[in-house]
Amino acid sequence: MDDHLYAVIMAGGIGSRLWPRSRNHTPKQFLDLLGPQTMLQETVQRIEPLVPLSRLFVVVSQDHAQRVVEQVPGLPAENLLVEPCRRNTAPCIGLAATVLRRRDPAAVMAALPADHYIADGAGFCRAIEAAVQMAADDYLVTLGITPNQPHTGYGYIQRGVLLSQVGELAVFRVRRFTEKPDAATAQQFIDSGEYYWNAGIFVWRAQTILAEMARWAPALAEELQAVSEAWNTPRRAQVLAAAWSRAPKVSIDYAVMEKATQVAVLPVDIGWDDIGNWATLSRLLSKDERDNLVHGGGRTVLLDTAGTYVYTTGKRLVATAGVQDLVIIDTPTALLVCHKAEAQAVKEIVERLEADGLKEYL
Amino acid sequence: MDDHLYAVIMAGGIGSRLWPRSRNHTPKQFLDLLGPQTMLQETVQRIEPLVPLSRLFVVVSQDHAQRVVEQVPGLPAENLLVEPCRRNTAPCIGLAATVLRRRDPAAVMAALPADHYIADGAGFCRAIEAAVQMAADDYLVTLGITPNQPHTGYGYIQRGVLLSQVGELAVFRVRRFTEKPDAATAQQFIDSGEYYWNAGIFVWRAQTILAEMARWAPALAEELQAVSEAWNTPRRAQVLAAAWSRAPKVSIDYAVMEKATQVAVLPVDIGWDDIGNWATLSRLLSKDERDNLVHGGGRTVLLDTAGTYVYTTGKRLVATAGVQDLVIIDTPTALLVCHKAEAQAVKEIVERLEADGLKEYL
Repeated sequence: MDDHLYAVIMAGGIGSRLWPRSRNHTPKQFLDLLGPQTMLQETVQRIEPLVPLSRLFVVVSQDHAQRVVEQVPGLPAENLLVEPCRRNTAPCIGLAATVLRRRDPAAVMAALPADHYIADGAGFCRAIEAAVQMAADDYLVTLGITPNQPHTGYGYIQRGVLLSQVGELAVFRVRRFTEKPDAATAQQFIDSGEYYWNAGIFVWRAQTILAEMARWAPALAEELQAVSEAWNTPRRAQVLAAAWSRAPKVSIDYAVMEKATQVAVLPVDIGWDDIGNWATLSRLLSKDERDNLVHGGGRTVLLDTAGTYVYTTGKRLVATAGVQDLVIIDTPTALLVCHKAEAQAVKEIVERLEADGLKEYL
Repeated sequence: MDDHLYAVIMAGGIGSRLWPRSRNHTPKQFLDLLGPQTMLQETVQRIEPLVPLSRLFVVVSQDHAQRVVEQVPGLPAENLLVEPCRRNTAPCIGLAATVLRRRDPAAVMAALPADHYIADGAGFCRAIEAAVQMAADDYLVTLGITPNQPHTGYGYIQRGVLLSQVGELAVFRVRRFTEKPDAATAQQFIDSGEYYWNAGIFVWRAQTILAEMARWAPALAEELQAVSEAWNTPRRAQVLAAAWSRAPKVSIDYAVMEKATQVAVLPVDIGWDDIGNWATLSRLLSKDERDNLVHGGGRTVLLDTAGTYVYTTGKRLVATAGVQDLVIIDTPTALLVCHKAEAQAVKEIVERLEADGLKEYL
């Protein structure tokens, strides 16, 4: 264990593609989507071999702070960083880095999304350890997921020259970040063998990322400086609220990673999935001989049904007949019936509900 | 109006193919499936030009007598015939004929299922009037529905010689009844032009049907005789219960119609449908430009959805994406998601629930 390694779990997402289970009051990362543990709890457990709770931080928005307290018992109160409002990843990471630098000028932080699935936890930890070595040389290190299909929903990272070999793991300089490409471009990326998916898992020294923010995102850095100065004073909440009201809604990729020069990618093949929608979730789970999967506690009767994922709770019965490749998510206030091929469209349903002001279903 | 014409509405069905709306406590005929009125109410209204409430009878099982009282205000109490238990159509019709004959020895009864749809109400009334003329000559008259497809779920009636012409309506002797045929046979029936669907709509003198029952179903006739003798005595309930505990569970078709000789069929083309399942129900209703139909009071969001019938109540939202030709019936205790082509399988779902003793969903 590296005593200067800190984990920062980013739990601010909303997961609208997993509606109607993922809701405003309980987004994706707080749900037991894959097993008895919530995504947040799995994320905490995954990094625990390297980072004890005393060095684990969770960044969350005001609305969901209580969920973290409930789901991560033993988390020190000072390690719960509450954002006054949601502001994408750059301010989130900036806040964590600011707090860490105050606590430990030599802090190395691993920034981890709270809502990802990783099959190979040991491989993940080995990758983080290798990344920590690179971070010591002031690299901004990002894990690059070895792609297995030309997915158009992810950002891609092109590798450059080999920087280092840490055991079996290679680390490359990053040549270029590309946001969600079209299908043809994605296929070219895959064929070239030089591209990785950007999973938003980063390792760097707190000092390094703050220095890069000062250079590439000076407005944000200025707000963070004010927050840092007020942190151990009675003015903390007030200054943080003011800073966040002004902070730009911008991703760390756009604000820093695409601009910085000292950026490294560490390719990994660790069974990563962001569980982007119901179809990808159901792919990860074991099914019966007809490729059906039933979750939740409710009763079901499936007749002549194949490839279908059913989630149902409580006393409601769900019966199906003659259907294929559907997702049926039955919650007390809303029901989703969706073809797996259209699982991405769930986000659009949520947008419609928002546009119509139907908050009770969000 | 013929003062000796009585309507007998048979409201004892269960309609399991319309589960989960049709339930043990509220079967199909008591539901507003097609519009603001229930099927029973529509049946009453349809015959009202010929038969006032004073000559209208409803036969119903004990469980649902209260539903009839609620849905047919003004029905004289003595016109509500309550069966102690369900016993198919022969005992039901026998009971009604017995009561009618006591009241009016010249009674002609029109036996009408409570759960059928008929588009052409005026045509229906004209057919009943023509049938009444034939019944005067002691014929057992059945309406024959002109088939528009080789349906394998109905019984077929083959016509024989022309007996009479009543205005535009022809009446034929019945040559043969055939229970649900296979597809090839059904196609032959259609091609021949000699066959009609048996809709279970009958007209006869009460005297005639009771005489035929005495001949072809003597055990039942004996029970009915006992009921008749006890009808206006304090022993009515007791005798009826005893008779019904022994009465055979048999259809009027099997018990009498297939055996009697003086049987006539009156072909009609009146937009008849027995609303056998959710797919046939949705065919009867008007839809939007994508062939979708939403019923019930709940909210819906349909994305990239076609040919789909959604029923939803209350506060629950139903959202769909990328689905076609589905039936989605969302009730407070049970949900059905079914391909329209498999709508008949709903009966099988109900049978499974029965086999598993899950009464709360029946």
